[in-house]
Amino acid sequence: MCQLLGMNANTPTDVMFSFTGLATRADEHKDGFGIGFFEDKGVRLFVDHHSARQSPVAELVKTYPIRSKQVIAHIRKATQGVVALENTHPFQRELWGRYWVFAHNGDLKNFEPRLHGAFKPVGCTDSERAFCWLMQELAKSHASVPDVAELTHTLAELMPQLHRHGTFNMLLSNGQALWAHGSTKLHWLVRQHPFRRAALRDENLQVDFASVTTPQDRVAVIATEPLTSDEDWQAFAPGELRVFVDGAPR
Amino acid sequence: MCQLLGMNANTPTDVMFSFTGLATRADEHKDGFGIGFFEDKGVRLFVDHHSARQSPVAELVKTYPIRSKQVIAHIRKATQGVVALENTHPFQRELWGRYWVFAHNGDLKNFEPRLHGAFKPVGCTDSERAFCWLMQELAKSHASVPDVAELTHTLAELMPQLHRHGTFNMLLSNGQALWAHGSTKLHWLVRQHPFRRAALRDENLQVDFASVTTPQDRVAVIATEPLTSDEDWQAFAPGELRVFVDGAPR
Repeated sequence: MCQLLGMNANTPTDVMFSFTGLATRADEHKDGFGIGFFEDKGVRLFVDHHSARQSPVAELVKTYPIRSKQVIAHIRKATQGVVALENTHPFQRELWGRYWVFAHNGDLKNFEPRLHGAFKPVGCTDSERAFCWLMQELAKSHASVPDVAELTHTLAELMPQLHRHGTFNMLLSNGQALWAHGSTKLHWLVRQHPFRRAALRDENLQVDFASVTTPQDRVAVIATEPLTSDEDWQAFAPGELRVFVDGAPR
Repeated sequence: MCQLLGMNANTPTDVMFSFTGLATRADEHKDGFGIGFFEDKGVRLFVDHHSARQSPVAELVKTYPIRSKQVIAHIRKATQGVVALENTHPFQRELWGRYWVFAHNGDLKNFEPRLHGAFKPVGCTDSERAFCWLMQELAKSHASVPDVAELTHTLAELMPQLHRHGTFNMLLSNGQALWAHGSTKLHWLVRQHPFRRAALRDENLQVDFASVTTPQDRVAVIATEPLTSDEDWQAFAPGELRVFVDGAPR
């Protein structure tokens, strides 16, 4: 199984602390990693088919404070598809003049959708097929980019059609909001005023968020497994879809 | 004006030497840079709206030997569109299950094509509009990915329709080949056995290619201005389209 990390904030925020927590788990998840940062409508997508433990690209992400309001990261342990750059999450496509970034943790069985639209997989994973199908169905449902509430409504109709094929924990963003779907394992929390100290579970690293934030800041973090040992992480119910805007669930 | 750099090779090759030569020119081209590497069908695209002189991302590219057979890089001096990540070249889209990477040097006047297909610009540059229009017209011309000769034929019909709107030096790749169109300023050369020493024009840096290659290696380099002072660069004629495969023009 892979591991997911998502971040949604009301002010551009770096994810060096959380990404360090994720990368620590890369020993078992050695088949690549990727991270996408939205900056307004633009995206920086770093992918590498080397482990996040060894990759110079991961080192850059851990030390260069890229500030973003929407981040999706993934470390991969291949279940379907060979270890290759084109199979490395997150995946990116453009729809309605907006970039969309998607990462998946899970395994879809017998999922061979009819992809007759403008979105075709480049690699050979079930995950990229699921993303292309989602983009195709969104494109059929709306003529141009709808508001977040409408998109959430459409996604809530589409998720069960993927979920019935197997494990489907996923993160999706178009830069306006971050959607998270829980299937077997996904957790979230919101950090907001009053901020306090937090310690990574798997690494001897602490951050005092009060010293690096303002009282107005708010950030939601979504991760496969809780990243810290001393914060209140909440589990997604199976089949639960949540949308995060400005650092909070809606 | 921006500056372009393209590389097409018959064996995965790094571009640290040539990219260093390009980045040296970033003082005047401070409005962002980007570089896309194909690795088989996968793409790594690094973009930054900071100058290639200062960006930690550019530093990574200069020091991490990413080996690729197709590379497209761009340093930007904004003529149309604000300085923002979504306006930073190269641009990337997916068509027929292949990624396409595009960068443009020039300025298209009154180019407002009808974009009725599946490719919409995210930013607000003439360049991204031109790329979306190219993708749309390619999608109309072929049902699935044709061979390089057929694609070249279609592109040769499309280029003049862009060129008549203004300066259109461009690089385009889908991982199989690299297409280059010259309008006002574009140069190319092929490095092959017997390899020799070359010195960057703008930086005190030399490479003896004989020491880092095998006799079978062949690499074509395309750049706005010749990058080295002691090699035979050839200029593109206005309106000339060339396709490079396995390190040589076809």
